[in-house]
Amino acid sequence: MSKAKFIFRQLFEGESGTYTYLLGCGVTRKAALIDPVLSTVERDVKLIKELSLDLVYGLNTHAHADHITGTCRLKKHFPAMRSILSQHAGGKADLLIQHQDTINIGNVALEVRATPGHTSGCTTYVTHDYRRAFTGDALLIRGCGRTDFQGGSASTLYKSIYQQIFTLPEDYLLFPGHDYHGRTVTTVMEEKRFNPRLTLDEKDFIKLMNNLNLPPPKYIDKAVPANLRCGVYETDEGVQSCACLT
Amino acid sequence: MSKAKFIFRQLFEGESGTYTYLLGCGVTRKAALIDPVLSTVERDVKLIKELSLDLVYGLNTHAHADHITGTCRLKKHFPAMRSILSQHAGGKADLLIQHQDTINIGNVALEVRATPGHTSGCTTYVTHDYRRAFTGDALLIRGCGRTDFQGGSASTLYKSIYQQIFTLPEDYLLFPGHDYHGRTVTTVMEEKRFNPRLTLDEKDFIKLMNNLNLPPPKYIDKAVPANLRCGVYETDEGVQSCACLT
Repeated sequence: MSKAKFIFRQLFEGESGTYTYLLGCGVTRKAALIDPVLSTVERDVKLIKELSLDLVYGLNTHAHADHITGTCRLKKHFPAMRSILSQHAGGKADLLIQHQDTINIGNVALEVRATPGHTSGCTTYVTHDYRRAFTGDALLIRGCGRTDFQGGSASTLYKSIYQQIFTLPEDYLLFPGHDYHGRTVTTVMEEKRFNPRLTLDEKDFIKLMNNLNLPPPKYIDKAVPANLRCGVYETDEGVQSCACLT
Repeated sequence: MSKAKFIFRQLFEGESGTYTYLLGCGVTRKAALIDPVLSTVERDVKLIKELSLDLVYGLNTHAHADHITGTCRLKKHFPAMRSILSQHAGGKADLLIQHQDTINIGNVALEVRATPGHTSGCTTYVTHDYRRAFTGDALLIRGCGRTDFQGGSASTLYKSIYQQIFTLPEDYLLFPGHDYHGRTVTTVMEEKRFNPRLTLDEKDFIKLMNNLNLPPPKYIDKAVPANLRCGVYETDEGVQSCACLT
């Protein structure tokens, strides 16, 4: 097995344009998935096992509206895995986290930064040792998450990005929750300079965000209730329950 | 601008499942694109300019059969850019390269390794300083390029992979020309252990590859002739010609 200290994989789910991130500690072989998607769980499990990693955490950056989280199904493969969600998301998970918590994946430390605004429970995870942050739908590449449902607030999102993401060193890599144009990564510097929404002042940003008039996400009626229950979902065989609810 | 020594971006074109790679030198600001796609050239140009990079090379790993290369159109934006293709591809380009050549992108050196078998002109580019290789369609994640057209040979491909890619250090990151399952990167170690085709012996590999019975690539009739001419293509305004042909 590789002795690399930090094992990192970016994975993509094409239907919802969602990125899932695998983070592993090369010393202890502990690992976490950020934003696993239900439909790609089998792919991710195969990779985790091939890399001789033990999945200890399934983290969600927020209660997604466009896909069902894979955290619940992952437990079938890794029964000791614990799901993680912000305590402000209003949902259930094994661990409810808050701003300034630290999550240790073996020797890899993730700082929790609350970045609400797209939803009330949005979280950005930062690894200072490896100079990167996982911004979920708060900050996207040259864009940001919508703010018109699920506790969204344009004013709150603007402050979250400026106070919690743009205060990171400019070279930090930013990995978003989605991209719909084939881009995989950006940096703090790039988004500060070139993000067409965030280069606006707060007033113009709020005006823009409040007038996007977007249609509702395709799967919101199914995805949000499921994701507030850690990815519990209905199938032909009935409701699939999750250990974190029992 | 970031002072990072090595600037790296992985970019994706969804219709053909193609990865394009941007490699830049943080000191000289020189850059190259590996396998640019015609339909995503504008996206890539925007990024290159935002990053204050100067595109000096457009490299193709081979004459693609599934999409038209963007090298020709890139010259409209970067007139001094030179297109690069293997001298064994049977096509035209500004620079025809061969095994063991070195391509310098500012201070970033790329070693050329001939890896024929998918096509006769397939090339793998290796940066030892940053411990990664770009394998085009020779080696894919848990797969490999087909060998049933355009000078393909299963026996040749097997030898190319074993002699030119699997001899790299096991921790080297391998970036493929395509992935159809949302995976972005692999390592030499992983493919040596888990690639279902390459863990076969040569005889069984050849047997498997010669019995895949795949349909021809959707765009082969347009893409191959265009790519052998550096991405010259027909539009409503007529044939777009390329400076490397004049």
